Amino acid sequence: MFLVLEDRLDEKASADILDALVQLGMQAELVRSSKQVLIFVHSDVRAVPTHKFTRIPGVARVMRTAPTSPLALSDELRTVDLTSNQNSLTIGGGAAPVIMAGPCSVEGREQLLELAHKVKSAGATMLRGGAFKPRTSPYEFPGLGQDALSYLREASIATGLPVVSEVMSAEQIEIALDYVDMLQIGARNMYNYELLKEVGKAGKPVFLKRGLSATIDEFVHAVEYIMLAGNNQVVLCERGIRTFETRTRNTLDLSAVPLLKSMTGLPVIVDPSHATGKRSLIRSMSRAAIACGADGLMIETHCQPNQSISDAEQAITPDDLALISADSLALFESLKGLDETPAAAAGPQGEPRPRLVVACATPGSN
Amino acid sequence: MFLVLEDRLDEKASADILDALVQLGMQAELVRSSKQVLIFVHSDVRAVPTHKFTRIPGVARVMRTAPTSPLALSDELRTVDLTSNQNSLTIGGGAAPVIMAGPCSVEGREQLLELAHKVKSAGATMLRGGAFKPRTSPYEFPGLGQDALSYLREASIATGLPVVSEVMSAEQIEIALDYVDMLQIGARNMYNYELLKEVGKAGKPVFLKRGLSATIDEFVHAVEYIMLAGNNQVVLCERGIRTFETRTRNTLDLSAVPLLKSMTGLPVIVDPSHATGKRSLIRSMSRAAIACGADGLMIETHCQPNQSISDAEQAITPDDLALISADSLALFESLKGLDETPAAAAGPQGEPRPRLVVACATPGSN
Amino acid sequence: MFLVLEDRLDEKASADILDALVQLGMQAELVRSSKQVLIFVHSDVRAVPTHKFTRIPGVARVMRTAPTSPLALSDELRTVDLTSNQNSLTIGGGAAPVIMAGPCSVEGREQLLELAHKVKSAGATMLRGGAFKPRTSPYEFPGLGQDALSYLREASIATGLPVVSEVMSAEQIEIALDYVDMLQIGARNMYNYELLKEVGKAGKPVFLKRGLSATIDEFVHAVEYIMLAGNNQVVLCERGIRTFETRTRNTLDLSAVPLLKSMTGLPVIVDPSHATGKRSLIRSMSRAAIACGADGLMIETHCQPNQSISDAEQAITPDDLALISADSLALFESLKGLDETPAAAAGPQGEPRPRLVVACATPGSN
Amino acid sequence: MFLVLEDRLDEKASADILDALVQLGMQAELVRSSKQVLIFVHSDVRAVPTHKFTRIPGVARVMRTAPTSPLALSDELRTVDLTSNQNSLTIGGGAAPVIMAGPCSVEGREQLLELAHKVKSAGATMLRGGAFKPRTSPYEFPGLGQDALSYLREASIATGLPVVSEVMSAEQIEIALDYVDMLQIGARNMYNYELLKEVGKAGKPVFLKRGLSATIDEFVHAVEYIMLAGNNQVVLCERGIRTFETRTRNTLDLSAVPLLKSMTGLPVIVDPSHATGKRSLIRSMSRAAIACGADGLMIETHCQPNQSISDAEQAITPDDLALISADSLALFESLKGLDETPAAAAGPQGEPRPRLVVACATPGSN
Repeated sequence: MFLVLEDRLDEKASADILDALVQLGMQAELVRSSKQVLIFVHSDVRAVPTHKFTRIPGVARVMRTAPTSPLALSDELRTVDLTSNQNSLTIGGGAAPVIMAGPCSVEGREQLLELAHKVKSAGATMLRGGAFKPRTSPYEFPGLGQDALSYLREASIATGLPVVSEVMSAEQIEIALDYVDMLQIGARNMYNYELLKEVGKAGKPVFLKRGLSATIDEFVHAVEYIMLAGNNQVVLCERGIRTFETRTRNTLDLSAVPLLKSMTGLPVIVDPSHATGKRSLIRSMSRAAIACGADGLMIETHCQPNQSISDAEQAITPDDLALISADSLALFESLKGLDETPAAAAGPQGEPRPRLVVACATPGSN
Repeated sequence: MFLVLEDRLDEKASADILDALVQLGMQAELVRSSKQVLIFVHSDVRAVPTHKFTRIPGVARVMRTAPTSPLALSDELRTVDLTSNQNSLTIGGGAAPVIMAGPCSVEGREQLLELAHKVKSAGATMLRGGAFKPRTSPYEFPGLGQDALSYLREASIATGLPVVSEVMSAEQIEIALDYVDMLQIGARNMYNYELLKEVGKAGKPVFLKRGLSATIDEFVHAVEYIMLAGNNQVVLCERGIRTFETRTRNTLDLSAVPLLKSMTGLPVIVDPSHATGKRSLIRSMSRAAIACGADGLMIETHCQPNQSISDAEQAITPDDLALISADSLALFESLKGLDETPAAAAGPQGEPRPRLVVACATPGSN
Repeated sequence: MFLVLEDRLDEKASADILDALVQLGMQAELVRSSKQVLIFVHSDVRAVPTHKFTRIPGVARVMRTAPTSPLALSDELRTVDLTSNQNSLTIGGGAAPVIMAGPCSVEGREQLLELAHKVKSAGATMLRGGAFKPRTSPYEFPGLGQDALSYLREASIATGLPVVSEVMSAEQIEIALDYVDMLQIGARNMYNYELLKEVGKAGKPVFLKRGLSATIDEFVHAVEYIMLAGNNQVVLCERGIRTFETRTRNTLDLSAVPLLKSMTGLPVIVDPSHATGKRSLIRSMSRAAIACGADGLMIETHCQPNQSISDAEQAITPDDLALISADSLALFESLKGLDETPAAAAGPQGEPRPRLVVACATPGSN
Repeated sequence: MFLVLEDRLDEKASADILDALVQLGMQAELVRSSKQVLIFVHSDVRAVPTHKFTRIPGVARVMRTAPTSPLALSDELRTVDLTSNQNSLTIGGGAAPVIMAGPCSVEGREQLLELAHKVKSAGATMLRGGAFKPRTSPYEFPGLGQDALSYLREASIATGLPVVSEVMSAEQIEIALDYVDMLQIGARNMYNYELLKEVGKAGKPVFLKRGLSATIDEFVHAVEYIMLAGNNQVVLCERGIRTFETRTRNTLDLSAVPLLKSMTGLPVIVDPSHATGKRSLIRSMSRAAIACGADGLMIETHCQPNQSISDAEQAITPDDLALISADSLALFESLKGLDETPAAAAGPQGEPRPRLVVACATPGSN
């Protein structure tokens, strides 16, 4: 990135800007091109919002070499607020972790109502459930569609829990709007830009899952599509990326949690169920997620996990969910204590804004 | 996997074995081949030690279709004990997290002594430092070799901290034995089976890092090489795997922590410095590591990180290390409380041995 | 996979079936379950069509443990035939390689007409050009939309070349139907199952690109979605997968060409432009693609590549395209000669159907 | 990269240098730092040898920001010449493709002698065979060691074929020197820098396989280790990289062939056996390899592939090898014809040195 300096700047002023950047841990160099005086910033600053630089006195303009996402990037924490059944729920911004629980697919009315009450007792603060299911094969169970949505609404009214469910087309958005409190875009559709624009216009909060081989930057650009269509209420979800490892269904990339929060300020939820695909790993990965700052968890829950129609091997019981909810609250309280000590507030290196990512290496250089 | 049943088993006895497996969450089927009665276990049981099955009355023999690692696999927690300078340090088995800190490369005697005292004050319980450095290019700084080892020993005597340092050949093992308390095999040499055999014969605890694209199973097989050569004192280290993501140097795979512990019972350490390559992520990833059960951390520390000869952008100061040490102890205590509640002790699904991995899916099936 | 044998089969008949499988290179075992006589096939047979087994006398039924794609899988070569401007073009089935060329994005009417004539002279047999462009960032050039489609149609009439262009939504399909001869689904939308169903109903041949981290099996399941909606006219495109390598934009996976052809019999095209992202690699990768049996190439071409609005660094000139067309024809003729020798026709191992994939290893086992 | 210009250069001279770079397809910019006049080259030029720039009049010095490999990088084609049993064999530099064939592991004297004669009749020009085998598990067949080497020598004398075999330690190098014509470093040891230094001192040609997750740049740096130790006789081998795909053992990265040849000028061999792990793909991938410029093939061959002790599912028979040898020669001749046309000689974009890689994108930027 280059900073174009104002025209009549003297040497002292230019040197001061250079100093300011070095203080921020960046490698930078003063250069004079044929037309202007520039500062060439060697560090990776894709995650640093432009106004960080334009605020520096003497800087006229920022020339980035890589695309940016002005709406998605932010150095302020942002919350997403749901109002459902006269209750409200805040996600992100330092609020207590949200626990989203429910079945992979809604399998029936009674089953869902029973489960909704149980997950609420187990500490869940939101209800999830698949109505329209993207399936690798067209012969797999596609979900109960609108019926499932009506059961979800009924369960929401009965328990007070807000509801999130996935949509895969403009038509499904239309249908789902009457039933859900938050619209989910699944991992397979993160690159479906037409759908992102549609969901951006729908006027409901959006729960956006990371694509299974999407880079952090592509994920942030997907947020930009939604925000540019008029919707700032976006919750991000890390759900594992595709790697060579076969012992887990995907590889949970927890570094994405602090990275995404520092880049966008948006709430970040972790889905350990899809990330690991293994019941026995869900509790420990939930703990890790909360410990590194996740704003909540999405966990597949089923009264009889082994009888689940889909993803049976990764669903857990409400009893297990209760342990995870308790863990999450306890860890959240512990961390609040740790973050409130004066030293901690300063962040590593005494940086005043610990959420700001200032990478010193060129990406891809290792 | 097939279980071969004893010859004269009646139908009731066979059915009982089948039931026992289903109770453990496994999918299994009774089959009669031309010669014998078998149970075909559909679940992935590579991580389950053989004696789990041979202990079941009526089971004559286990036929595995994939290679196993009888010495490395264990369903008992195992500790590694270091004795250095009349002090002893226990790694794993529920002991408090070990904090291994020090420079990427040892750069000089005074620098190291100063840093050793500072990291000790910051809560470190072991000293790390590179003497022989594997470098991608032969023109990069290769380390100070035996001089570095002698400075490490001196710093160890001055502070009481045991020392770990990397070796890359039989000759270097020979030299290092006089100076270090634990021999490190780096990620680049995890597949160097001749070196694993050598280090297995050396009679010192081994710190084995996961190869940068090694599967969990290959990592466990590497442990088997060391143990077969006569050394059971092995500490494992997850340090990030190579993926498509470029915002982090590697992708920290924290699922590996509970997986490796449940499969081998060995201590597992996390290295967030190499995993992320980014100073700003180290504190949050350290928290996540401890929260999911890691037995300690290895963290690159430097008094002036920006002046570090190698890996400057990932080193942190002793002051930052102090925050991480405090975090780790606080989280460790919180988790002990959570694990000691009766419900938690049973683990998800009420399994009596929560460390046992019982995967229901065929690996690679997603 | 299990083969369920007919009820009243004697031992000799069962053994014959077992022998037949072994002759085909498969590992199989006779087992008697409590209810029936089965053959357990250890080999990976996901790619083998079911009728291969049901045709064997004595086999009652096939029980697969992994999902299958009955419409997409085929052991007969299938062609896709386009009729455009009174001309017809056959893709696949042993026809001469199709050369699809044109700009990444259509940038204007005159530019496109000039280019269309030039690529035709350079040996192209189809015209490609982006009208609706999926872009990582919403601020990148999104394509000229319907205007671009009308220019493409005009260029098609002027040159006689059939036209392919990408669509990303049901609305765009509707619009594009009047202008193009083949509808492209891009890599980002391979998992967009709602779009696959829509394009399956549109009644035009479909050009389906592999998702950037899609497995071969997921790719074949995506074909199944299109075919199940009523459209068998599908052309597949390998365009590189996402890996850790950074010297190329993606990693061209040429093994996919013979694998996909043997599994589905459908035409397979290779796109070296997106796979490599580097002009200097396109000619050699085009040669490799034709040599391993690809039915054609899709190549980004531009009169002034460095002035291309998008993907400038991977576009080539019509002059370079002429070299690639000449290469392709020459290699195609060479290979025809080689395949016509009697020994070659038998294929490796003297298998009578060389296109049939019979894998001996469980996927994921390495 | 920066080019430091000579001190007393006038504006016209500086502009000429800038023009020269743009002509080469590079993006560059003239800048004046506080101390000197520089040209900042935005394009990726890691693969361009330094003398390309220092030869430009007015350029004083080249400042690279990424490490380089001066010995490994070359823009001249280089050959490796073996002399064995009074015969000589040239690899690379435009010579006919070398066919290296033989068993994964040498399993016995008679078996090897029979096979050696058969592969020679089938067109092989070198004999390969494993004596010391790196195995994922210590319980797998480790090879026959020195006995295997003596059988290989005997087979070499009997047939006249030069021999290549893998070594994994300094001791094994010492032993193997008396028996083999070329020392192989396997994929697992590509990062074993101590071994690279040893083999560089051994005075025999080296056959270096790419590590299973090594980038092209890391591979080239590994060559630098060998060359810096005094050995320029290096043959490179692409043998597949580790990705998410499970239908093939690894993913054959054929783009590596032209990339490595343009960067180093060294011979590049392709190993389709390990890359695909599937007998049915070996012939088509061999064709693709030769078509994109590979200097030869390494193919696992066995008289009874299904009875091979190791890697049974990827070995082919001598009869199949004969088809591949015939393919390779025919394609090599076809390509020679195509490359000799005047237009082709100029390469894409009329660049005078078609082997030179001039990448326009920053690595990792996509």
